[in-house]
Amino acid sequence: MNGHQPLPSWNEGAAKTAILEFVEQTSAKAVPVEERIAVFDADGTLWCEQPVPVEADFILRRLAEMANTDPELRDRQPWKAAYEHDNAWLSQVIADHYEGDDTKAQTLLAGVGAAFAGIGVEDFETRSGSFLRSARHPTLGRGYLQTAYAPMVELLGYLQANGFANHIVSGSGADFMRPITHELFGIPRERVIGSSTVLEFTSGDNGGTVTRKAQLGFLDDGPQKPIQIWTRAGRRPLLAGGNSNGDLPMLEFTQHQDKPSLRLLVLHDDAVREFAYTSGAEKALAKAGERGWTVVSMKDDFATVFAAGEPR
Amino acid sequence: MNGHQPLPSWNEGAAKTAILEFVEQTSAKAVPVEERIAVFDADGTLWCEQPVPVEADFILRRLAEMANTDPELRDRQPWKAAYEHDNAWLSQVIADHYEGDDTKAQTLLAGVGAAFAGIGVEDFETRSGSFLRSARHPTLGRGYLQTAYAPMVELLGYLQANGFANHIVSGSGADFMRPITHELFGIPRERVIGSSTVLEFTSGDNGGTVTRKAQLGFLDDGPQKPIQIWTRAGRRPLLAGGNSNGDLPMLEFTQHQDKPSLRLLVLHDDAVREFAYTSGAEKALAKAGERGWTVVSMKDDFATVFAAGEPR
Repeated sequence: MNGHQPLPSWNEGAAKTAILEFVEQTSAKAVPVEERIAVFDADGTLWCEQPVPVEADFILRRLAEMANTDPELRDRQPWKAAYEHDNAWLSQVIADHYEGDDTKAQTLLAGVGAAFAGIGVEDFETRSGSFLRSARHPTLGRGYLQTAYAPMVELLGYLQANGFANHIVSGSGADFMRPITHELFGIPRERVIGSSTVLEFTSGDNGGTVTRKAQLGFLDDGPQKPIQIWTRAGRRPLLAGGNSNGDLPMLEFTQHQDKPSLRLLVLHDDAVREFAYTSGAEKALAKAGERGWTVVSMKDDFATVFAAGEPR
Repeated sequence: MNGHQPLPSWNEGAAKTAILEFVEQTSAKAVPVEERIAVFDADGTLWCEQPVPVEADFILRRLAEMANTDPELRDRQPWKAAYEHDNAWLSQVIADHYEGDDTKAQTLLAGVGAAFAGIGVEDFETRSGSFLRSARHPTLGRGYLQTAYAPMVELLGYLQANGFANHIVSGSGADFMRPITHELFGIPRERVIGSSTVLEFTSGDNGGTVTRKAQLGFLDDGPQKPIQIWTRAGRRPLLAGGNSNGDLPMLEFTQHQDKPSLRLLVLHDDAVREFAYTSGAEKALAKAGERGWTVVSMKDDFATVFAAGEPR
């Protein structure tokens, strides 16, 4: 509780020590500021992803709204699951995905595409921003913006104060998160990387519009993460934080011959304060053990999990 | 020649006045710094694109090298044109493209893909950086890095000093330009947007590699430019600079209801100091006339075209 010491929300331990040593080495080796790239997965790494990722709730509400208006949709997935609040089907999508079976994911993603097809990107952001500022987590008794992990928000600030450019590299959509990433994580819009929807430009009197199509672009997960990091930042990161198998290639990519690097893997082992699960993280945890990456135990390393109180 | 006045490389006139007034309005209206997004085409807008764009020379040399090694390639386009130094075929590719016929462009782009397939992105940049720092323009008697337009470089610096984040949004490849954009234009790697090649991530002992595949991603031209600006910067620009029909959608997208905006169209009308041509810019020039966008005459508005002397 010493305000002058960095990372007060972190307990003393191997993870905190690894972070402090890494930042010290970066300064000691005089790594130029422009090379100080840090990348973070979002769902399950910076904020809560249980029982479903935040964007999934947003999309499900939209699908339910569509099924409400159009009864024919009520027998078709993913509208059926959304309309019936069938969270089991949705959890299975994610479980299957981590097992390498994307059949249900394709069905879900087709619904996702249809849910916002024809909407301008600026209008889409107004909708997602409004949702994120008002919707509440189903069990944690707080708004979604308050499900950000306080120690990770603190880490982002500490890195930024040490010259790092933090990026989000998420399987969720970039345009979904952008309205709140700066306020919540200090990460500006241009450093939010996420899954994409095919976009279309239409000329018009007031500068034209970029509109979402039903077709999905790429899923920013697994090997797509290092590819997108290169495409966007144009550099190999020095620090990567993730929590699942889909973050493995990004964590692996975060390695240099001549500069320090740090790989953080958030372990969800705190059933009391958050959730305890390793489903979808088995390979990443095994690799972290093999390679000596830093596992962050939410139970042991986080002095607090969430910031106190409700947002505004 | 007053060092205290901005834009000394620009002659007094409508273009310079429009720029100064736009920057003044941006400050007067207190447009937040994070919204001050400026986007610039590269070839023909920031540096010379005649007789062929700089990247085309780079690729042609590589294709000629391949044909030199493998005689069978000498009868196939685009290797044939490269091997025979047939610039006419290449000029036709661009002329056809601007007329809406991309048959030859597809042939060329397939060759481009094959030319660097299987090469890691970091190795590719080493090659392009080395080329850009050593190759000379075929007729202007200077290295390619000295074919940047001095008034445009000065404009970039002036905008940056006024809080703008300058971006390159080019039909050339981002990875081709990145090694020199900061040094030459003050534009960091993450703000270089360009045409893409499909990339692949391969695991490996030293952090794995992102490798170029033969397949092309998207051509960052025409309607793809506003789409990429949104994807990357996440904002509508305040200022756009271009010189051809392929920049039209980007120029159009640069419009706000409540903030100033400036659209610059560079007109190549200086056969003495650079080149005089409007081929591929006809529609953009017509639209600029209709909409009252600012046409920058290289002959009249540029006090100097290129910086004096040779690089280092």
